[in-house]
Amino acid sequence: MRVSRLMLVTLRDDPAEAEIPSHKLLLRAGYIRRVASGIYAYLPLLFRVLQKISAIVREELNATGALETLLPQLQPADLWERSGRWSGYTAGEGIMFHLRDRQGRELGLGPTHEEVVTALAADLLRSYRQLPVNLYQIQTKFRDEIRPRFGLMRGREFIMKDGYSFHANEASLQDSYGEMDRAYRRIFSRCGLRTVAVEADSGAIGGSASQEFMVTAEAGEDLILSSGDGLYAANQERAVSLAAAALPLAAQPCRELDTPGQTSIEDLCAAHGFDPSQIVKVLLLVARCADGSLLPVLVSLRGDQLLNAVKLANGVSARLAPEQGTLLSIEPLTADLVRSERLPLDLSAIPFGSLGPDLSDGTLVATAAPTPTQVLAGSGNAALATAAQLRLVPKLLRLTDPTAAELETFVCGGNNPDKHRVGATWAGLGLAPELVDLRAAQSGDRCLHDPEQTLTAARGIEVGHIFQLGRKYSEALGARFTNESGAEEALWMGCYGIGVSRLAQAAVEQNHDSNGICWPVAIAPFEVIVVIANLQEPAQHLLGEELYTSLLAAGLDALLDDRDERAGVKFKDADLLGIPWRVVVGRGAKEGQVELVQRQGSVKRELAAAELIAELSALIKAGRSGLLA
Amino acid sequence: MRVSRLMLVTLRDDPAEAEIPSHKLLLRAGYIRRVASGIYAYLPLLFRVLQKISAIVREELNATGALETLLPQLQPADLWERSGRWSGYTAGEGIMFHLRDRQGRELGLGPTHEEVVTALAADLLRSYRQLPVNLYQIQTKFRDEIRPRFGLMRGREFIMKDGYSFHANEASLQDSYGEMDRAYRRIFSRCGLRTVAVEADSGAIGGSASQEFMVTAEAGEDLILSSGDGLYAANQERAVSLAAAALPLAAQPCRELDTPGQTSIEDLCAAHGFDPSQIVKVLLLVARCADGSLLPVLVSLRGDQLLNAVKLANGVSARLAPEQGTLLSIEPLTADLVRSERLPLDLSAIPFGSLGPDLSDGTLVATAAPTPTQVLAGSGNAALATAAQLRLVPKLLRLTDPTAAELETFVCGGNNPDKHRVGATWAGLGLAPELVDLRAAQSGDRCLHDPEQTLTAARGIEVGHIFQLGRKYSEALGARFTNESGAEEALWMGCYGIGVSRLAQAAVEQNHDSNGICWPVAIAPFEVIVVIANLQEPAQHLLGEELYTSLLAAGLDALLDDRDERAGVKFKDADLLGIPWRVVVGRGAKEGQVELVQRQGSVKRELAAAELIAELSALIKAGRSGLLA
Repeated sequence: MRVSRLMLVTLRDDPAEAEIPSHKLLLRAGYIRRVASGIYAYLPLLFRVLQKISAIVREELNATGALETLLPQLQPADLWERSGRWSGYTAGEGIMFHLRDRQGRELGLGPTHEEVVTALAADLLRSYRQLPVNLYQIQTKFRDEIRPRFGLMRGREFIMKDGYSFHANEASLQDSYGEMDRAYRRIFSRCGLRTVAVEADSGAIGGSASQEFMVTAEAGEDLILSSGDGLYAANQERAVSLAAAALPLAAQPCRELDTPGQTSIEDLCAAHGFDPSQIVKVLLLVARCADGSLLPVLVSLRGDQLLNAVKLANGVSARLAPEQGTLLSIEPLTADLVRSERLPLDLSAIPFGSLGPDLSDGTLVATAAPTPTQVLAGSGNAALATAAQLRLVPKLLRLTDPTAAELETFVCGGNNPDKHRVGATWAGLGLAPELVDLRAAQSGDRCLHDPEQTLTAARGIEVGHIFQLGRKYSEALGARFTNESGAEEALWMGCYGIGVSRLAQAAVEQNHDSNGICWPVAIAPFEVIVVIANLQEPAQHLLGEELYTSLLAAGLDALLDDRDERAGVKFKDADLLGIPWRVVVGRGAKEGQVELVQRQGSVKRELAAAELIAELSALIKAGRSGLLA
Repeated sequence: MRVSRLMLVTLRDDPAEAEIPSHKLLLRAGYIRRVASGIYAYLPLLFRVLQKISAIVREELNATGALETLLPQLQPADLWERSGRWSGYTAGEGIMFHLRDRQGRELGLGPTHEEVVTALAADLLRSYRQLPVNLYQIQTKFRDEIRPRFGLMRGREFIMKDGYSFHANEASLQDSYGEMDRAYRRIFSRCGLRTVAVEADSGAIGGSASQEFMVTAEAGEDLILSSGDGLYAANQERAVSLAAAALPLAAQPCRELDTPGQTSIEDLCAAHGFDPSQIVKVLLLVARCADGSLLPVLVSLRGDQLLNAVKLANGVSARLAPEQGTLLSIEPLTADLVRSERLPLDLSAIPFGSLGPDLSDGTLVATAAPTPTQVLAGSGNAALATAAQLRLVPKLLRLTDPTAAELETFVCGGNNPDKHRVGATWAGLGLAPELVDLRAAQSGDRCLHDPEQTLTAARGIEVGHIFQLGRKYSEALGARFTNESGAEEALWMGCYGIGVSRLAQAAVEQNHDSNGICWPVAIAPFEVIVVIANLQEPAQHLLGEELYTSLLAAGLDALLDDRDERAGVKFKDADLLGIPWRVVVGRGAKEGQVELVQRQGSVKRELAAAELIAELSALIKAGRSGLLA
């Protein structure tokens, strides 16, 4: 390909819309253009990268016997209603774009395909003889992100490889899960990326076990906690650790303490000399459920610990009644929430800053009753308020982290403004705490598997995620097969994703310098660029064209910069584009000499044009195998 | 690939949902499954076909220097508002799926990409030095079809190759258009399809010239009219021809004729001995415009001719005022329309069956005024009626086909119930007809280019369409470049489509027999299937596995039917699937003999297994080049 025919437009300055280096570079080097928020056109250069990544994915998955397929992007709502995910994905913070067709039927734009593929499996897979089967597709997916950002990292339209496996039993599922784990490691390594596999939360997909693959990079949105011995790594959303030991508070009779204006752990410690680990911190939140109900949640945590929102959501989800449907969101009980949900609550009657784990259920109910004045003030508002009151579950869901539950004696809020209690005990408060792991593991925490090891934090970009789904979807959608003994049972399932377009940008995030992108050879849009320094110089022009033709004939992905521009402009563009090898045909052309530059590290050397093809062929063919080379 | 691992499910009976052979066969042979109306899952077998077609498309387009890219499927409404197509594509019979995102912004799901690509061109193409550029993508497209049917033929989600070229002048556009014409012929021929190129209507895409490529097949939705000498072929929507000569009506003074109950051409001819070609037929229709206005259209046509709805829509569109926006639909003025549009019209006051070309504008206005009773009856209805009256354009758009305009003396309606006129002339009616080609060309018509030739009809499936767009989109979206003399002007554009998934089904429609599909080698999911007749027979099993391995090693796409089924079942499935070559390893295996069967024509012969690979390699490699072989 000739640069003059490539529709190449490079930008000198960083575009205002971009924050992180990879996003800036992809825009500046002409790989992508923004069409709408979180929606990008993939220009020809990026398309070549995506094709190379896809080819590697296909080779590795086909080698495992997985079958490529293509499922619809438009998915009927009823399939998602059968799995129970429609409202969670379309209401509240649900991220599924959805629409009505001309017949008024609701359709969603697929962010994932468990429902569709399980319905197909129910139709096609009837006997254990057909199992296991592993289906995958490489497809554009959609997510109506609340905050699309960072270019292809968190877009509203993006390319995924998603795969789904079906099994006659859990052992077979675990085999395939292991096989996918190994295939994923080969894929990322062949792409030239440094990744770590981490334990992960399964989120809205569900299932028992899941593992993410992270490209390590400073701009990563995810926090990885790992042990120095390499035996433990997890996404912070999921990570577990040993909390530091609490500083014991002497057993003492429980007494009330005046704590005027002391509404935070810091205030309490500063005023009374407590250690944060001696205090039980209590948070009041509200969970919104798919059936419209609002469930108040009271969380107790040791004062020196932070709440992990993902663990909380999982803990609450697991405790919803079937009729409440899925959990849509959890947020602190604030004035904003009272307004937006039209809750008939008087927040000033709730002792925020002094909440105790034994806050009575009545606190919310008592403040919830509309006063006669409110009822008289306007029938419409009162009706709304009453409706909201009916939606508010009258009983607090009390969840306690083990760090708090383990305290024998502690300080906690007194459920009265400006009052705390010292010397409280769980039994004394009349509580038998329901234990849920809710604390966020932190860098510096001791590891569970070896308390001598501590966790260190690194940032990562999630590019792959594999799940053992179990039978959640097959049971919901009636995907059953006849087993060897002739009985019917639900299929066992796994699912496996790779963010193809995100991976392309993650590669840039991990491989760039101040001059531009440094693509790994295996996924570079072109492997080598021939730059004719001065197009007006016949010897350079001739040799440049000759080498370009020979490189193509040798089976290399070669680009020729045939533009009549200054050499400096062409060098800058070659660096910005990130082509792994550059051949400069300049003054030495007359003597048959060229310069060979490796983009990574800018290593330069002169060599005879006659030797170039053989030498570069070997280098590039080695580079094509990625990190293994 | 082994059949046992292919998730293959074949059906013995025709599925109720399918009407045409190709749709039935793709379902029965396990290529597709329906997920929702007009929405299909492409199973692994079909995916292989789609990949082979796509590879041929890519090779031929890349060879012309076209650049592959990938544009978003979600498109912001404002781009479509700038081109003036948003309402035409989303209101009324508009086929674009559309939705609002969480910010309330409207987005459409791309059925086509002129807007997005032109906006990109406006950003990236600034100088004549960058031109011409030809961008293409292979992508899933969406159309909310009124009547999705025939499987992949008219689906709501389907795969297209769409390409767009940009030029500094019209001559360059014409060059690329010609180059795409040649590339398309090579693509279809390499796919093994018999196609014809026909003149076509440009429809909602617009532009000056366009040509369709039709796969000839009885179940085709399109009607092709062509001359025996091969010099003319057109889609009936667009076709022109010479009408038969009219039987002259003697010049005579115009007189009124009583025609009680004679409301059709047939009635008039039967009652009075006229020839249909002596009568001017008059039709009253209503055009719905994007701005809500309703334009009454009066069409005059010679009595023996039929109206071509596409030509009419084009004629009306070209005559709308800019503020009316695009044409949404045209339909006859009926009681249904009056009801659905709440038109304040009294249809009994309009002399249907006796309409003359000189029907006065006042006819509609006079019946349109709400009576005082209507006004009193209910202010709401009257307000609606008045609004509809305001939307009704008070002047008829009168369009006359040349066959009618050429009549010197004719019979026509008298604009009074049960009255016609004989001996009418255009001047006598006070009309100077506005000529528009509105008649439908028919099989049997004489050709314009050679009246000795007549048109014959054939059915076809449109698989490709190329357009010279001109500057319609570049002007609307401000895509301008600096030409050689330094002046700014709008880009010239072409666009080029191939229905990739439709092509796959069209190939089946053109290549099947009573036993199943007969894929052309070049796009078959597998090129050869090895059937082990009896898996329990060690000699057969061994030789079958050996041949399968050797075929793969020879670079052929081989499938092995390793299922423990009766030989007859496996033969039937192989025929249904349509694999071009079948190698049967049966009783002759002990003597090293196999049977080679060509699917097309079921030609069988015995040969030594030792010779199979060389012989089949040559046959299949020839078959890969499609019809050229």
